Amino acid sequence: MPIVQVYVWKGFSNEAKKRVIAGMTRVFVDIGVPAEAVEVVIHEVPKEDWGVGGEPASEKLKHAHVP
Amino acid sequence: MPIVQVYVWKGFSNEAKKRVIAGMTRVFVDIGVPAEAVEVVIHEVPKEDWGVGGEPASEKLKHAHVP
Amino acid sequence: MPIVQVYVWKGFSNEAKKRVIAGMTRVFVDIGVPAEAVEVVIHEVPKEDWGVGGEPASEKLKHAHVP
Amino acid sequence: MPIVQVYVWKGFSNEAKKRVIAGMTRVFVDIGVPAEAVEVVIHEVPKEDWGVGGEPASEKLKHAHVP
Amino acid sequence: MPIVQVYVWKGFSNEAKKRVIAGMTRVFVDIGVPAEAVEVVIHEVPKEDWGVGGEPASEKLKHAHVP
Amino acid sequence: MPIVQVYVWKGFSNEAKKRVIAGMTRVFVDIGVPAEAVEVVIHEVPKEDWGVGGEPASEKLKHAHVP
Repeated sequence: MPIVQVYVWKGFSNEAKKRVIAGMTRVFVDIGVPAEAVEVVIHEVPKEDWGVGGEPASEKLKHAHVP
Repeated sequence: MPIVQVYVWKGFSNEAKKRVIAGMTRVFVDIGVPAEAVEVVIHEVPKEDWGVGGEPASEKLKHAHVP
Repeated sequence: MPIVQVYVWKGFSNEAKKRVIAGMTRVFVDIGVPAEAVEVVIHEVPKEDWGVGGEPASEKLKHAHVP
Repeated sequence: MPIVQVYVWKGFSNEAKKRVIAGMTRVFVDIGVPAEAVEVVIHEVPKEDWGVGGEPASEKLKHAHVP
Repeated sequence: MPIVQVYVWKGFSNEAKKRVIAGMTRVFVDIGVPAEAVEVVIHEVPKEDWGVGGEPASEKLKHAHVP
Repeated sequence: MPIVQVYVWKGFSNEAKKRVIAGMTRVFVDIGVPAEAVEVVIHEVPKEDWGVGGEPASEKLKHAHVP
């Protein structure tokens, strides 16, 4: 049952994505939900298309690290 | 009025997308909603970014067919 | 795999919801996706919270029928 | 940056919600994202409004446990 | 065409919602999109269900103002 | 707090995106929400994947202008 839609900046490594998928599923398993029931969907969004405080993250948070 | 956000694995054919758009709109028409009011938005997600049971579908469901 | 998020106005009957769930699932079955893989999530939104053309639907589309 | 939209069946306890919020945030902290950057939004959906395999979960999965 | 899904804390006044609907539509009108094409959907989420920095906003941001 | 998910057709210019991000943030600032709290995420969707009235916008609205 649980559906998890995750929005992150473009550039996440495959390793980071795997850890997100595994980790979020485990959160539900830990409260009694079967792993098979959990779907995690990751959406990568370019920093140009993500606004924080009224400006694109590509300008405002130019040096922020993407894991 | 109705907005339908559809999340599928990357690789859907244009023919499959057209059938999804037409079919979902018809479901609403059949219960009395005018076709013009229905918006269907399809989001293709790479199998690497879609987790099922704690693993990316690109590994767990490697051979699953995408229509 | 497919996840379908459906946004409609508050007031949909249970009968209409059942038809939406069954109908949207059938659209995917017809293109070769197993029914068990399809999740359809319906979100009812009050007309006050749904804007069309800059105004709430509760004012602009006061008399529109909800199935 | 990361935004996590979580869709679950209605009836989640406050304790379960807290664990989801804390756990999902920790997943990102573990890969180097600051906790303050993570927003987790939980949406509870009545089982009548959640279709699996073409039927509402309220019928098909009547006895499934909600944590 | 544009669909705008807005997630806010529960408790927004009708006046605030109207201003959000009107204002967001105007943003698109100002770049040449017809008002009639813009749909704005507001989702109110209880502060208990909205996590920031790993904790529910109902605890962490107890005194934050909802317009 | 507010999260704004914006879905538009592919082809939006960087200038249009900046105006959307700035404009939507200002709507919230005008009702008393601090700019820093507003996240705006723009999703560009190919017209082939966006259905209106049962047909892809790439066919039905072939000549519509994207700002």
